[in-house]
Amino acid sequence: MRRIRAVVYGAGAMGALATRLMTEKGVEIVGAIARNPDKVGRDLGEFAGIGRLNVPIEADAEQVLATRRPDVVLHATQSFLPEIKDQLALCVRSGANVVTISEESFYPWSSSPGIAAELDALAKENGVTITGSGHQDSFWLHQVSALLGTAHRINSVYGKATWNADEYGADIIQSKHVGETLEQFQESMASEHRPPTFGGNLLSALAQATGLTPKEWKTEISPVVADEDRYSNSIGVTLSKGTVIGYADIDVMTTVEGPTFTFEMSGYVFGEGESDMNRWVVKGEPDLYLDNGRVPSYTTTCTQWVNRIPDVINAPAGFVTPDQLPPLRYRALPMQNYVTPGALA
Amino acid sequence: MRRIRAVVYGAGAMGALATRLMTEKGVEIVGAIARNPDKVGRDLGEFAGIGRLNVPIEADAEQVLATRRPDVVLHATQSFLPEIKDQLALCVRSGANVVTISEESFYPWSSSPGIAAELDALAKENGVTITGSGHQDSFWLHQVSALLGTAHRINSVYGKATWNADEYGADIIQSKHVGETLEQFQESMASEHRPPTFGGNLLSALAQATGLTPKEWKTEISPVVADEDRYSNSIGVTLSKGTVIGYADIDVMTTVEGPTFTFEMSGYVFGEGESDMNRWVVKGEPDLYLDNGRVPSYTTTCTQWVNRIPDVINAPAGFVTPDQLPPLRYRALPMQNYVTPGALA
Repeated sequence: MRRIRAVVYGAGAMGALATRLMTEKGVEIVGAIARNPDKVGRDLGEFAGIGRLNVPIEADAEQVLATRRPDVVLHATQSFLPEIKDQLALCVRSGANVVTISEESFYPWSSSPGIAAELDALAKENGVTITGSGHQDSFWLHQVSALLGTAHRINSVYGKATWNADEYGADIIQSKHVGETLEQFQESMASEHRPPTFGGNLLSALAQATGLTPKEWKTEISPVVADEDRYSNSIGVTLSKGTVIGYADIDVMTTVEGPTFTFEMSGYVFGEGESDMNRWVVKGEPDLYLDNGRVPSYTTTCTQWVNRIPDVINAPAGFVTPDQLPPLRYRALPMQNYVTPGALA
Repeated sequence: MRRIRAVVYGAGAMGALATRLMTEKGVEIVGAIARNPDKVGRDLGEFAGIGRLNVPIEADAEQVLATRRPDVVLHATQSFLPEIKDQLALCVRSGANVVTISEESFYPWSSSPGIAAELDALAKENGVTITGSGHQDSFWLHQVSALLGTAHRINSVYGKATWNADEYGADIIQSKHVGETLEQFQESMASEHRPPTFGGNLLSALAQATGLTPKEWKTEISPVVADEDRYSNSIGVTLSKGTVIGYADIDVMTTVEGPTFTFEMSGYVFGEGESDMNRWVVKGEPDLYLDNGRVPSYTTTCTQWVNRIPDVINAPAGFVTPDQLPPLRYRALPMQNYVTPGALA
């Protein structure tokens, strides 16, 4: 079987890492798309730090897609469906499958059902699949739904994930209200217009995979406050005890069948020795627990994005969310070995 | 859709708990089979402690199966396929699907391929499915393979599970060589004929679910020694520091593709505060980890056995191991709601 042809859409840190992972798994990268003039014209391999691939980063997405005819596009630009709708539509119209790490695309039916339905129809028309994946695919969906499969009765499910806001630069630090007093934080929250949280999408996917029907969602925001002085590398400032160092989005979903789901996602400036975590606590018969220790979220965002490639090629046409796909599997062999015979034209 | 009709084959602690779980999930229990004269003639519901069900425990398996025509048999008698082959064949010939917690049946292709092939052919002939499930289904297979799906490269996988030998009575305590000195234990190991360990079946299933090809297996036995005096409730004896309190089976599997898998299953007399554990450590890119905290193995053996009922009814005919089934799912509704339309005749 021939190699899978891929285009990288969005040349950021994630696209760079995925470029290396794909080349190590036999995927043929045939194009790269980015708008940033500092990146356009550079070689994707050199950008990714793995040596020349003879794949230039180009600005004209339509042109790249039309001339390179990829089997799949690995898409990583923005988080929300309204922002990326046109980009996904372009990929689909060119006849390419898409796997995106846009957070909302993981389960857009709860937050942007109209756009999701449009893209679903367009994908079906073109015989291709759009899927969202990333860190959440296994850690927040498939591992958790497998754990819930051992329950006789679920009363409540509580998940907590954390990430280090200090690793993502000064813009993110500012968006997380780092350095504000609690009073300033409350004022910011009262005035700020915030996009929908990702927890709602995640919990909807988890309900779907667990055979439950969402009834209501609500979101709370809870500041994280320094319990001792800690230093932020990305802004070069010591944050004194008592100041806000980030916050948690706490999403709560009730279901028609009874179980309540809570997901707390907390981004803040980590202290010495802290690491990303992923922990789930289930109350019911019996009580259940899952903890992934030190979670390498940055890497696992990319590994899952790349490991999903064969599933997206194999899947039926449409906007197919990961709760409808087989659980993620390890790919020991070159990626084309996992494609259903005949699925690569 | 009508209710699922089930027969309980084997009236032990597991059959009793499954009886309650099934009645709470709308399964109609139409028969019960056991050989023990102390149990034959008793009502299954009374035996299970949930009040009269008007289902007598009967000794004549063939008669029960022929007259009750169950959709599925929940089978829990012995561990090894040679011991239960005739029982499974009887169920299948009567036209019933079977889900068994016989450990070897979880993946019999590595240890009893001949019997597995015979039963597979017989099941296909009769249009029904045989599946093994139990605690291992989610905790040692589907949660772990979902975790492995986040890896770019796996070097090694190490799993460790423990169980409290003190909870299963004096016979088990004796079989675990509890109370022996290290010298006595080594002598016992040199002379004792031991059946194959379950780790080999488990690792084979995990390789299958991970897309890897087993190359070689080996098993080691490692004694667990008391690090301080501890009391065994089931034999009423204090075991002094330095004596054997059980042992671990350590199975190691190499694969053609490279990754090495180790599974250490340790049964011994627990001390104060110890609980069953399930912990997996993956070395590779990236390193990965999974820990289920205090694992209620006893309950989750039954919950998974029962939650697998719709999958076994829906599955294609044959001996279908859980690596070939969808991951276990929670069953919020009466069990027949998860059966594919038309699968219940």
